[in-house]
Amino acid sequence: MAIQKPTLPKGTRDFGPLQMARRNYIFDIIKDTFKLFGYQQLETPSMENLSTLTGKYGDEGDQLIFKILNSGDYLKDVSVADLGAGAGATLPKVSEKGLRYDLTVPFARYVVMNRNEITYPFKRFQIQPVWRADRPQRGRYREFYQCDADVVGTDSLVCELEILLMIKRVFAHLGLDDYAIKLNNRKILTGLAEVIGAAGREAELCVAIDKLDKIGWEKVQDELIERDFVQAAIDRLNPIISLQGSNIEKLDFLSTFLASSEVGLKGIAELKEVFELLTKYGEDEKFVDFDIVLARGLSYYTGAIFEVKVNNVSIGSVSGGGRYDNLTGVFGLDGVSGVGFSFGVDRIYDVLEELNLFPEKQLEGTKVLITYFDDEGRDYGLMVLNQLRSSLISAELYPDTAKIKKQFTYADKKQIPFVIILGSEEIEQKQVSLKNLLTGDQKSCSLEDAIAEVKNSIID
Amino acid sequence: MAIQKPTLPKGTRDFGPLQMARRNYIFDIIKDTFKLFGYQQLETPSMENLSTLTGKYGDEGDQLIFKILNSGDYLKDVSVADLGAGAGATLPKVSEKGLRYDLTVPFARYVVMNRNEITYPFKRFQIQPVWRADRPQRGRYREFYQCDADVVGTDSLVCELEILLMIKRVFAHLGLDDYAIKLNNRKILTGLAEVIGAAGREAELCVAIDKLDKIGWEKVQDELIERDFVQAAIDRLNPIISLQGSNIEKLDFLSTFLASSEVGLKGIAELKEVFELLTKYGEDEKFVDFDIVLARGLSYYTGAIFEVKVNNVSIGSVSGGGRYDNLTGVFGLDGVSGVGFSFGVDRIYDVLEELNLFPEKQLEGTKVLITYFDDEGRDYGLMVLNQLRSSLISAELYPDTAKIKKQFTYADKKQIPFVIILGSEEIEQKQVSLKNLLTGDQKSCSLEDAIAEVKNSIID
Repeated sequence: MAIQKPTLPKGTRDFGPLQMARRNYIFDIIKDTFKLFGYQQLETPSMENLSTLTGKYGDEGDQLIFKILNSGDYLKDVSVADLGAGAGATLPKVSEKGLRYDLTVPFARYVVMNRNEITYPFKRFQIQPVWRADRPQRGRYREFYQCDADVVGTDSLVCELEILLMIKRVFAHLGLDDYAIKLNNRKILTGLAEVIGAAGREAELCVAIDKLDKIGWEKVQDELIERDFVQAAIDRLNPIISLQGSNIEKLDFLSTFLASSEVGLKGIAELKEVFELLTKYGEDEKFVDFDIVLARGLSYYTGAIFEVKVNNVSIGSVSGGGRYDNLTGVFGLDGVSGVGFSFGVDRIYDVLEELNLFPEKQLEGTKVLITYFDDEGRDYGLMVLNQLRSSLISAELYPDTAKIKKQFTYADKKQIPFVIILGSEEIEQKQVSLKNLLTGDQKSCSLEDAIAEVKNSIID
Repeated sequence: MAIQKPTLPKGTRDFGPLQMARRNYIFDIIKDTFKLFGYQQLETPSMENLSTLTGKYGDEGDQLIFKILNSGDYLKDVSVADLGAGAGATLPKVSEKGLRYDLTVPFARYVVMNRNEITYPFKRFQIQPVWRADRPQRGRYREFYQCDADVVGTDSLVCELEILLMIKRVFAHLGLDDYAIKLNNRKILTGLAEVIGAAGREAELCVAIDKLDKIGWEKVQDELIERDFVQAAIDRLNPIISLQGSNIEKLDFLSTFLASSEVGLKGIAELKEVFELLTKYGEDEKFVDFDIVLARGLSYYTGAIFEVKVNNVSIGSVSGGGRYDNLTGVFGLDGVSGVGFSFGVDRIYDVLEELNLFPEKQLEGTKVLITYFDDEGRDYGLMVLNQLRSSLISAELYPDTAKIKKQFTYADKKQIPFVIILGSEEIEQKQVSLKNLLTGDQKSCSLEDAIAEVKNSIID
């Protein structure tokens, strides 16, 4: 067989030990938070029927779904005429399944298929990879993890409160303290369109306003004119664009500004209640910014809209979500409303790396390496190894009789903090030599003392 | 849009909250064990280039790899003539990538691509799904998790010892106490072929002998005859087939039986050393059975062969592994030997279910539900909720003001063990009523006392 030089498919990644330890550090904080808040884990298959996936993500999204070739003689239904008709026409004949594109559609499918067994309100979280045949670029991969939490079956604003609380807890535990949870409400955007005389056009309005941060108000106005908004309507937006102040000040201003819009006032009332619930829970508004121009371009949000931006980093937006009224309508089950949020783990990883926020101490891995000089040392080492592990200390015995320097290099490369050295003296005195590779300290002591010292250092 | 009734692709599964809690229970025990033994986690992409996957699993395996359709106009290189040539001929033109079929080939690819950065001996574990386009049947799925640990870069038998220890630890923590770790050595099988006069034919010999459990010695003999083994050779196997006794008794018998085979004696010496290392570590031979007819049909094993069978259940074989001499040769890197083991999580799940061994107490999920009667109760409840979570107790506030019975039904269905009830009396006296749903006990107490009681019950 010819020797191949193996490569990875474009846009995919291996995660080696250090990266996995760091990713698990992030996943564990998010997972612990979801569980603390009563969310239950769900996993769905990587493959879904194309009939489940197609038509949910727009035409462009459909193109980006990875399709799986039918097994066996997959071309048997493809005719010569089909060949001329192009890829789209033959696709249904050669592929029935695709890879998960997000976690929301599979969740909706799950809810519909299990509607009678589910306990509502259903608080589920899901942490799994998704796949998109996007052009790979910095920070954009063809396989990446999503980390979603959703509650369906209630429109209580306590759920919105909990999303704010979960974000705050996750970011606090990650050591991030310069970020903003941007919060808006679709009903306010609807009201805004109404009061500027463009009722029902909030989607278009949002697409343009969404770019405010990037291109500025002048260019947003140009775009609105291109989209046939009249100048008088655009002018009425001026006070909104320049709106400043605390959350409550902004909401107070809007109470007047949107006074003629029933739905707009409803949106304000919802937001005010979320802030009140936050206070009643005993939390302050720190990190939470009402942002009236936040739209996230997603038309299926019907209530709250969330986005988290980390300040002073190259990729700022790391997470987002919102409330929707009809998650499962596309599968024939109406009236399932809910609210959800997704942590962008890959981006959070990049942010922590950029800000040097990963803990300095070894996150996972062996705490003690046992080294020795000969078979007698190895045999003694096996007993020591057993004792360490019985004390739940992750430990290894260097498997081969090798030069002590080689064994230390192994400890060093694996960032193992402690080495136990077993020479003839230690064996004779039934002791061990324990070396702390971080401080350089070395001492002879009983195995019990060594175990106590290592355990103390793990707790620190 | 037409309403679809969604379904799952054949051979795939959703894992709801209860199943996930049980699966995580198994995964956590295995993961903790791998980490305690110094294995580091690796994750590789779900997709690999077909050039990486093809030719590694035999012709049948190649058929079972799920192929991913190239993006865009995937038929552009397919000619009319290709259509007549069949699926195999056109495959390279429409698909470049496939889904991971196991964790071993991606691991080998990773080692080759990162050979200079890896610290050897490299102890890696990997827990990820794999996909096979197999015909689905009971216990066989098209997507399932593998749970592998391998050490490469050393031929120390300490690694074989550690595999035995890891299996023992995992099974002990799962509460399994009626099982056997079957252990053999490829070199003994090689020696066996030599001494019966069929040198070099141990692979064929093993394929037949592997069926001993299922079809019995008579039919195995028939198969050996079909495979052109002479009767004299088969007769010489008789004492092997009927071999009884302790591990050491069997090894002693073989020392004589295989005396003329150098490689056979080497295999015996290796096995003896593994048993000696086990004793030196301080463990006994319980659960470990030297099984001279264990072959696992896998020709790439060169040393130890492992298999775990649970007794008295419908699907017995739940895990397996062995030593190999040349993991990465197919990718052009020779001399990487190692030993690996794979826990079959889906089968272990079925075994635990069949034996009713999952812990009775709720494995994951909310510990306390806060219930209330009106807005005042909800507001008080928010403060209570904050205190519970600050004490790291997983807690929920029922999000809507609903009949108390409905709130209790929610707690019941979610198997939440404690309910806090907040009526006007509790609010006035700044107390809570805590009800233990398992015992039915209810009492009024301070929030601090309630937290203490819940925390105690979690530790139990």
